[in-house]
Amino acid sequence: MPELGDNQKTIMVFSGDLDKVMAAFNIAIGAVSMGFQVNMFFTFWGINAVKKDNMTLKGKNLIERMFAFMMPTGVNKLKLSTMNMLGVGTWMMKKRMVAKKIALLPELVEMSQQLGIRFLVCDMTMDMLGLTKDDLIDGCEEAGGVSYFELAEHSSYNLFI
Amino acid sequence: MPELGDNQKTIMVFSGDLDKVMAAFNIAIGAVSMGFQVNMFFTFWGINAVKKDNMTLKGKNLIERMFAFMMPTGVNKLKLSTMNMLGVGTWMMKKRMVAKKIALLPELVEMSQQLGIRFLVCDMTMDMLGLTKDDLIDGCEEAGGVSYFELAEHSSYNLFI
Amino acid sequence: MPELGDNQKTIMVFSGDLDKVMAAFNIAIGAVSMGFQVNMFFTFWGINAVKKDNMTLKGKNLIERMFAFMMPTGVNKLKLSTMNMLGVGTWMMKKRMVAKKIALLPELVEMSQQLGIRFLVCDMTMDMLGLTKDDLIDGCEEAGGVSYFELAEHSSYNLFI
Repeated sequence: MPELGDNQKTIMVFSGDLDKVMAAFNIAIGAVSMGFQVNMFFTFWGINAVKKDNMTLKGKNLIERMFAFMMPTGVNKLKLSTMNMLGVGTWMMKKRMVAKKIALLPELVEMSQQLGIRFLVCDMTMDMLGLTKDDLIDGCEEAGGVSYFELAEHSSYNLFI
Repeated sequence: MPELGDNQKTIMVFSGDLDKVMAAFNIAIGAVSMGFQVNMFFTFWGINAVKKDNMTLKGKNLIERMFAFMMPTGVNKLKLSTMNMLGVGTWMMKKRMVAKKIALLPELVEMSQQLGIRFLVCDMTMDMLGLTKDDLIDGCEEAGGVSYFELAEHSSYNLFI
Repeated sequence: MPELGDNQKTIMVFSGDLDKVMAAFNIAIGAVSMGFQVNMFFTFWGINAVKKDNMTLKGKNLIERMFAFMMPTGVNKLKLSTMNMLGVGTWMMKKRMVAKKIALLPELVEMSQQLGIRFLVCDMTMDMLGLTKDDLIDGCEEAGGVSYFELAEHSSYNLFI
């Protein structure tokens, strides 16, 4: 872990809803653009935002396959928390964002990594869902609660999303 | 922008659910009553809390009219995040609040403005939904991410609701 | 109220969803384990996490009984915010947690109290729902907004969950 400055920004991404995850990344990118070290800690449903599109089921048992089947695989499958309307709302919102040149989630994720935002992924959630590091996009670090709190303690800004 | 003290409180209101928006205003009013400068930054669904009741559709294109049609127009139309039950839960909760003399949302909004809480509205969300300043209640300031972070950086308390 | 140090951690638990409440307790326990004073302030739906299993209806009027009937009574009845799937998702997740030796909510609540985490319960919510201290588990303190803000002001970490 790099040396810790005391004015970091740390966002716990608990939600897996498209709109909330987008908000998290927009905030993170805003903060990193202003020169701050930013950490995102993905836990519970939030982990869906950093899963690979083409997650393999090899080596997973029945219940792990069921989780994999029921949850969105990767950033392109997340839905709005509200007004999803069987997908129409989510589709319409994305279309509108493209028209307005607002960055969509996959771009936000890529941009975040290029700007040096750290991606930490909750090891307890990974264990619960039967995920391994191979199921996550590149650049993710497995992390436990202690690592999270060390970062939070060095952060002047902590959100739960 | 007024000179910035370093012990401000800033709440990002992302949700448009009645209960969460009420919580945001109650927290904000509590903080301002204790003498702190309080800022509310409305983004995404949260923007519904500061929209005018009688929003006009003039000058809006098809997709903007669809957004206007699908989203609650103004503070009286917001619903509970849970237990809405086709409106019965929301109605019952409001009735109970009146009986218990708990301030309803429109009063909270008015009180907040009288107490000097700043209302900042995310310009990216306004652009996405095709809203102009005319669609918002009086006293709102359009603001971008940079303004938000400047306030957050001067705040000792930052929430995401 | 005990003397206040300036590096406390305070979590406002607004949600009554099983997953979010569990996250709140896990965070709280993590922080207290690292030596910090931790306060949990239960408000709105969050109050369901500290209600007794066997709440009595004696002395409650019609609308209070309706609230009692519609809301989960106690920590064992909370549901996932998403993927509940008529109970199957919640059941499956709990089963998986047991298999993985991840603490379930009732254990987390008990552990929190043993570790000295303070449980404050919003008096306005109690009034609104017609709850008395007898409806809450032992060790809860009734508290108003001012108490909350006094704690928040002495906390270097404030979350809204």
